[in-house]
This record gives sequence, structure tokens and C-alpha cells, in this order.
Amino acid sequence: MERLKKQMEFIIEVDKLKDIIRQTNLTNGERKENDAEHSWHLALMAVFLSEYAKEPVDVLQVIKMVLIHDLVEIDDTYLYDEAGNGTKAAREQKAAERIFNILPGDQAEELFKLWQEFEDRKTPESKFANTLDRIQPVLLNDATEGRAWREHDVCIDQIMSKNEYTSQGSDVLWTY
Amino acid sequence: MERLKKQMEFIIEVDKLKDIIRQTNLTNGERKENDAEHSWHLALMAVFLSEYAKEPVDVLQVIKMVLIHDLVEIDDTYLYDEAGNGTKAAREQKAAERIFNILPGDQAEELFKLWQEFEDRKTPESKFANTLDRIQPVLLNDATEGRAWREHDVCIDQIMSKNEYTSQGSDVLWTY
Repeated sequence: MERLKKQMEFIIEVDKLKDIIRQTNLTNGERKENDAEHSWHLALMAVFLSEYAKEPVDVLQVIKMVLIHDLVEIDDTYLYDEAGNGTKAAREQKAAERIFNILPGDQAEELFKLWQEFEDRKTPESKFANTLDRIQPVLLNDATEGRAWREHDVCIDQIMSKNEYTSQGSDVLWTY
Repeated sequence: MERLKKQMEFIIEVDKLKDIIRQTNLTNGERKENDAEHSWHLALMAVFLSEYAKEPVDVLQVIKMVLIHDLVEIDDTYLYDEAGNGTKAAREQKAAERIFNILPGDQAEELFKLWQEFEDRKTPESKFANTLDRIQPVLLNDATEGRAWREHDVCIDQIMSKNEYTSQGSDVLWTY
């Protein structure tokens, strides 16, 4: 029962991901997307687009990574912020330690491994998961004619630089 | 390229799930949850709670089902509505036909099968997926001290009746 209590506490804690607002607008242009919606969208993309992964992938592993990849943002949020990038890793590590360790030890460990795999972009699964993460906001921005980019004066160089990892996970999706 | 275009059109279409508002409040009580956030939460629960499934489950199959189970609500939304229940199946079928068929034929077929499996509650995976679907709003309502239930004058009999399938997927979670 102690184990289940910890798991339920974690499930309730991560509800906060629904309040982490991203820069991307929904396709209807009415409001910005949050991290939970974004993660759901990536997981669905993993189900229906995995045929385009550059190397064969374990779809379950890809889905697990995209479901949890933004959890650290519950304590720490960033994008396109040059000043904050220097301390990003340390801040995210601290967030991971607080949030992941709500779970029982074995599952906390699994979660650390999953998140690290996503961040390291070395396995076929994590490369593809990162590709999906880069492509999804581009799709939404395209559907709203680049509204988020215009709002923030983001130029094509910055978009391409932020998306440099996209081709590592899938040539087809990068070309698209 | 025709195939990828259809897949991308589907990915954009399902963005609308983020606008389907549910009755459940977020744990911070500030607003109601939408179907995309709910689906993400269920998928995460599938990752960390599948040890409690009554029968062994294929976790990927459970996750796929919870990711897609509410897509038909893009065209048609309901809960706790006695009058609408009679025509619910027909309306949802129509919604599924429009939305699922945006995908290429083989993936549309896979999606129909997944959704039907979830609705039929016959396989261990779909029983467990339905259990998660019933338990998640209870967890959120509990965290806000039953706010959504009070708002709608929902009594304990209705909650239990709506949740009668919960025990089919997991004794441990039903008891909890």
C-alpha cells in the first residue's frame, strides 16, 4: 500500500504539467498549448509515424520518453532563452530529483533512465522521440501561419538551429 | 508522399481534442481539464500502474487505446446525460468514420480496431484501460475535494454506477 500511495502521489503531482504553457499556439489560434497536451500529441505521432524513423524503433520506448520528457519543466521552464541555457542542465537535474523520486525507488530509477536517454539523443528511440518533439510545434505553427514565430520575432535561422536534431531521427519527416 | 500527407492531416485534425472540455477540474482547481490532457494522464498511469492490472497486459496496447479513446468526442461530447445515451453509439460511430478515415487505409483500420477494443471491454488491455479512464477523474476530484461532483449535484450512487467497470480491470485500484 505504501508503494501504491507513492505512485498515486506522483500521478497527482504531474497534473501540474497541464499548467506549463508553451510558446506554440493551438491550430485554432485561440490559446497556447501546454506541456501535457504537447506530450499527448507526440505520443500519438509516435503511434502513427514511427514507420519514418531512420532506424527501427521500439515504439513503446519512444512513447514512454515523449510522455515524460517535459516533466522537469514542472519546476523549471525555458525555450529560446540564451541567458538561461548555461544553468539549464543543473536546474533540470534538481527538478528531476524532486519529481521522479516521489515514485517508489525502482520506478524513479526507470524514469531517470528514460529521461536521460531522451536527453542524450543516442539511441534510435531517443533520436526519433526528439525528432517528434521538434516537428510537432513546426506543424502547429505552420497551421497558424507561423504565428508564434512572428510574435517572438524568431527568424528562420533560429528555427533551423533549434531543429538541427530533427534529421537525426527521420530523414522523411525532416524533408517534409 | 500521399500517405505522409494524410498522416499529417490527421495529426493536425486531432489537435481539436485539446478543446474538448471535461467535467473534471485540474488539481489546482483553476480550470477544467480537456480530453488531450486527460489522455496524456491515462497514458502515464498506464506506464506506472500496469503492475496492478488484474490480468497481465501489453502496456503498449493499453497506451495506444487511452491515447485515442476520446478522439470521437471531437465531433460529439457527452457525460452523465441520460437523454443522449440512447443515440450515443450511432453518433460516435459517425465521428469515428470521419476522423479515423483521414488516415491511410491500413492505419484507419488499426485505429477502428483499437477504439472498438476499448469500447468492448473484453480484452485484459481494454479492461485495464477502462479502469484507468474511470479512476483518473476520481483522483482529480479527490484532490479538489469533489468539486466537480458538487458542482453537478452528482451523488455517490451515480459515481459508483459510472465506475462499475473499474474493478474489472484492477482489484487493487478499485479498492484504493
